[in-house]
Amino acid sequence: MKNIAVFASGGGTDFQSVIDANEREKFCVIKYLIASKEGIGAIERAKKAGIPAAVFAKKDYSSLEELYDSLSALLEGAEVDYIVLAGWLKIIPPSFIARFRDRIINIHPSLIPAFCGAGYYGLKVHEAALSYGVKVSGATVHFVEAEVDGGAIVMQRAVPVLDGDTPELLQKRVLETEHEMLPLCVQLLCEGKIEKEGRQVRIRA
Amino acid sequence: MKNIAVFASGGGTDFQSVIDANEREKFCVIKYLIASKEGIGAIERAKKAGIPAAVFAKKDYSSLEELYDSLSALLEGAEVDYIVLAGWLKIIPPSFIARFRDRIINIHPSLIPAFCGAGYYGLKVHEAALSYGVKVSGATVHFVEAEVDGGAIVMQRAVPVLDGDTPELLQKRVLETEHEMLPLCVQLLCEGKIEKEGRQVRIRA
Repeated sequence: MKNIAVFASGGGTDFQSVIDANEREKFCVIKYLIASKEGIGAIERAKKAGIPAAVFAKKDYSSLEELYDSLSALLEGAEVDYIVLAGWLKIIPPSFIARFRDRIINIHPSLIPAFCGAGYYGLKVHEAALSYGVKVSGATVHFVEAEVDGGAIVMQRAVPVLDGDTPELLQKRVLETEHEMLPLCVQLLCEGKIEKEGRQVRIRA
Repeated sequence: MKNIAVFASGGGTDFQSVIDANEREKFCVIKYLIASKEGIGAIERAKKAGIPAAVFAKKDYSSLEELYDSLSALLEGAEVDYIVLAGWLKIIPPSFIARFRDRIINIHPSLIPAFCGAGYYGLKVHEAALSYGVKVSGATVHFVEAEVDGGAIVMQRAVPVLDGDTPELLQKRVLETEHEMLPLCVQLLCEGKIEKEGRQVRIRA
């Protein structure tokens, strides 16, 4: 059974979707919730599910590198195989990404390459999509590379934009899809069914 | 009944989809097929459907502006209400776009803003999408502005990318969707059901 750690910076509904699916399907051990600060909803969800939560807040470290070095040591000590970014807003240094190459996935609330990259997170993504006037948005699970939202795409699903949508309404609709996709991708990853070659990702049946 | 002109540079399958839908639903008069050169498939399709075809080839004019001035005169003389770009590869000068403001629509074989803009046409769009590794592509009907593929979006539909896709296979799948969307958008436009405000487009029921 593969070990994972989930990184979250907010309420943790994407994290919860992985907890719930794993309780049903038992495809991994969630070794840690890594939180970017105290007091976020994701920590409460970890506690309820009996998952250890560790806080790695910028203010506790002299540099981002030091924070991620310490975090790497924790994850490697716990033999974590995969890292799942589920709303992680902290910048990740290339050294950390290199250390866990092809073992970090992220979920992004748009159809990459639309509305992604630096500055596109949370509601800002949906604000940008509505302001552009797209009729189809969606969600993307991708491997994490040094370029923000630039890694190989594992899975994408389209979500319609409807008349009268606000960023909040569109976010809610996209989140429903995220909560299906993310646990599915984590399961496929843990079951060794995701094959990556450069930017091309295939899912084995 | 509104008058339209369809502009095409190639085989004209998008053009054909408008001809076929209009034969069933009679939502417009197709006054002209405008072809960017002699000998393209779209001209044959126009002849078969009894639609006048006019060729506006660069080589016959001293400048692009002169070509489009002459084309404007033709279209205005024929009281053309809307222009439908159905695979039109010639650059359109801002003066022409201004003259027919909010009366030109284009179909593009991706989910704009992904894989669009200068250089993205025909198979190149699908090559770029496959090379990037997206799992969802699609098609977009949009109003034409001076910025290539930059106008307000009328309609978008998602099309899945499948394992083993080549640019040709993906193009074929997207074309099937284009042939549904384009006639529908032309019909909605001619029936006055498309409302545009800045970048926001709504379709009235």
